[in-house]
Amino acid sequence: MISFTGTYTDHYQLTMAETYYLKGHHEDQAVFDYFFRKIPFGGGFAIFAGLDPLLKALEQLTFNRDELEFLEQQGMSAPFLDYLKTFRFRGTIRSVDEGDLIFPTRPVLQIEATIVEAQIIETLLLNLLNLQTLIATKAARMKLVAGERKLIDFGLRRAHGPGGYYASRAAVVGGFEATSNVAAGKDFGIPISGTMAHSFVQSYDREIDAFRDFASVHPDNTVLLVDTYDTLRSGLPNAITIAKEMEESGHRLKGIRLDSGDLAWLARESRRMLDEAGLPWVQIAASNQLDEHVIKSLLDQQAPVDIFGVGTSLVTGRPDAALDGVYKLSWSQGRPRIKLSDSLSKVTLPDRKQVYRMLNSSGELAGADAITLMEEEEPRVMHHPFDPLQSLNLLRYEKVPLLKVVMESGEITRESPSLAEHSRNCLNQLALLPSEYKRFQNPHIYKVGISEALKQKRDQLVLDHEPGRRGSEPVS
Amino acid sequence: MISFTGTYTDHYQLTMAETYYLKGHHEDQAVFDYFFRKIPFGGGFAIFAGLDPLLKALEQLTFNRDELEFLEQQGMSAPFLDYLKTFRFRGTIRSVDEGDLIFPTRPVLQIEATIVEAQIIETLLLNLLNLQTLIATKAARMKLVAGERKLIDFGLRRAHGPGGYYASRAAVVGGFEATSNVAAGKDFGIPISGTMAHSFVQSYDREIDAFRDFASVHPDNTVLLVDTYDTLRSGLPNAITIAKEMEESGHRLKGIRLDSGDLAWLARESRRMLDEAGLPWVQIAASNQLDEHVIKSLLDQQAPVDIFGVGTSLVTGRPDAALDGVYKLSWSQGRPRIKLSDSLSKVTLPDRKQVYRMLNSSGELAGADAITLMEEEEPRVMHHPFDPLQSLNLLRYEKVPLLKVVMESGEITRESPSLAEHSRNCLNQLALLPSEYKRFQNPHIYKVGISEALKQKRDQLVLDHEPGRRGSEPVS
Repeated sequence: MISFTGTYTDHYQLTMAETYYLKGHHEDQAVFDYFFRKIPFGGGFAIFAGLDPLLKALEQLTFNRDELEFLEQQGMSAPFLDYLKTFRFRGTIRSVDEGDLIFPTRPVLQIEATIVEAQIIETLLLNLLNLQTLIATKAARMKLVAGERKLIDFGLRRAHGPGGYYASRAAVVGGFEATSNVAAGKDFGIPISGTMAHSFVQSYDREIDAFRDFASVHPDNTVLLVDTYDTLRSGLPNAITIAKEMEESGHRLKGIRLDSGDLAWLARESRRMLDEAGLPWVQIAASNQLDEHVIKSLLDQQAPVDIFGVGTSLVTGRPDAALDGVYKLSWSQGRPRIKLSDSLSKVTLPDRKQVYRMLNSSGELAGADAITLMEEEEPRVMHHPFDPLQSLNLLRYEKVPLLKVVMESGEITRESPSLAEHSRNCLNQLALLPSEYKRFQNPHIYKVGISEALKQKRDQLVLDHEPGRRGSEPVS
Repeated sequence: MISFTGTYTDHYQLTMAETYYLKGHHEDQAVFDYFFRKIPFGGGFAIFAGLDPLLKALEQLTFNRDELEFLEQQGMSAPFLDYLKTFRFRGTIRSVDEGDLIFPTRPVLQIEATIVEAQIIETLLLNLLNLQTLIATKAARMKLVAGERKLIDFGLRRAHGPGGYYASRAAVVGGFEATSNVAAGKDFGIPISGTMAHSFVQSYDREIDAFRDFASVHPDNTVLLVDTYDTLRSGLPNAITIAKEMEESGHRLKGIRLDSGDLAWLARESRRMLDEAGLPWVQIAASNQLDEHVIKSLLDQQAPVDIFGVGTSLVTGRPDAALDGVYKLSWSQGRPRIKLSDSLSKVTLPDRKQVYRMLNSSGELAGADAITLMEEEEPRVMHHPFDPLQSLNLLRYEKVPLLKVVMESGEITRESPSLAEHSRNCLNQLALLPSEYKRFQNPHIYKVGISEALKQKRDQLVLDHEPGRRGSEPVS
């Protein structure tokens, strides 16, 4: 449905690339880090998602003829356009896995490529990873409260255009089981779900005729929407009638859906009516402006809901609506690079790096990640990135390196795990994460530290750039 | 880049369609209204956008072989799959124009088609219109405060995957002048914009060398990013040096860009330094987490910013992140239809309708829209939709009907206006809207009323559905 081509990028990537090309720098190797600064939703963790679609898009990324013509009209120079004609991404990517827990400041993914290739893909990378990580994180928060109950994505109508396609995918990484989005179901192998809307009931003169027609066509997959006119006085009694008729013909009504009103109260009343009618197998689905907080509230009230259908808040990841993922240069022209900032916490980390996650003796996550230079041994001590007085001895922890090669010379180097495997990975990791990091209110902060060698390298670069010492002062 | 096919829909559209088909109802004509209930961002207006891409998608919508195979695997019946094989949307659409001001509850667009066609396209319609209307509205709010200053969309990296393509388009409808999004620029004819990122400066040993290389390759389009190391002590002095060098060779530095720190103060200092250096033509661009409130604050402080680059808040439309647009059945099987609700304000309006906008004698918008039945004459009185004591005499107003046929029998019936025309339409309409509706804090509410005939029809349908009177009570 969607194919990504070279112009799926910000204009400045091309103006910078053209400059590198014409100045003979285009084969210079560069390293960029993808990381984010703020966990969305005030939470204590994020879930990484979007890697597989990104890698597939990168393998196929070219500039087509239309695009080259357009860029020519925009005044791009002939030699650079010639270069773009045969453009391919041939870089190397190290990354954490989809479904992995990720935390701020730590490299999530690292790109090593010519500086032109690395710049041209930046926007596509951020565009796909920021969205999917945001949505997988939102989904995982709902999964944490929903537990064994089923979560279904109903969001396509409120999703951001075709972004909904990837939102549905990311929801599964975070713990959703099914989607209403047929295209996403087909292309990503997600179970699809959905039976009827209010319009279906309205289009009949009598609610029960609508229910009966639907059940006769879908005897094994009918969920009746019971709130078009009056949930408890019309919808439920009609649904019970139909369930009994289905039972007589050897079928079972799968469920009813509540889409308005006081869902906790209606679910309890509905459960009681269904049970009294001898229909314990009929499940109760709830939808209508759900999010992790509403789901939690419903379950805190013991609402007997079996299935939650979530739309807007899932696929838009609101209120944040964006992950602030960035892509920062850490190495180029044979030297480590840094970006300074008035705010110390925005100073970037130079050079190729590795991230180690600490596990305690019981295998639980110990609440600390250490960033090292890539070629270093496992770190023994980590330092607070900015407070010289704080450090942590790491000897007692098991250390798991997080960044693994997933693409080399532009080719995917591993069998892509299935979406279901990403989802299991997410659930497994969340199970190892102590509950203080999972609560919604003021969660624990997952610590980050840097190795002695990385700290020295960064501090030296900061010094090199002090005004009066660096080469960047005015030359006039 | 993106092609929409039949499975770009919610699964329930297909299960309902299959039921209609197998029960012989698929040729029944239906009418659906697209409208929304809540103006985003706490504002007093919304801007409609997304119609042209929707109509183009509808003209081409089919189910391809892959999709039919997939649906077969999902258990859809052979006769219905046969029907889908030749599916085309052949309906009629009446709509307001892109760039038009729209307000809650009023039909923005009306679809008349067979019920199966109308259901299958629902999700695509909502998905494209909800996003673009949200973003055009956000953009217009920024345009209102930015006035003659230039607004540029920098959002693709934070947009929701390929939803960013349509977000960039919608931003132009609402008043943005350019985009960093090359693919959107190419396909929608939007001027593209963007010069350099921090990585470009970082990749050189000296900031000034980066600036000089860039300027030599793009002598007529250089905006120097000055905050990589130290805005006023390094970036600005280096930019001034380069501007002088460019001047000597007959070129002019177009601008500098500030992307961090206190933008108001930095802009003032930068302007002063540039002016003192005899460079009054060098423009100041500002970016970094802008939205309508930050832009307003900068301008309230007289920050001399010429260009605003806006990313995340524009393309995600946060904090709302979604328009709550819905698609409700108002006519089917030869009869008007209604959806009831515990909340009176959620009761829908039946039948085909027209919307009249009232203008006062000076041509300004009078703050009132009247909804009538489609075949009615211009209304003389409008009634409050729910309060029987309130009505408004309309004799003194000029009345402009808003819904016009844009598609008939599945074919677009008019020359599509250009994006620039949509944008002018939006600006013209905003100029006619009194300022009380445009302010950010507690704006006036744009009134809606319904005609006597529509009121009677709705009230009769509500009565018909009272428990005990309607055919929807339990039959058991």
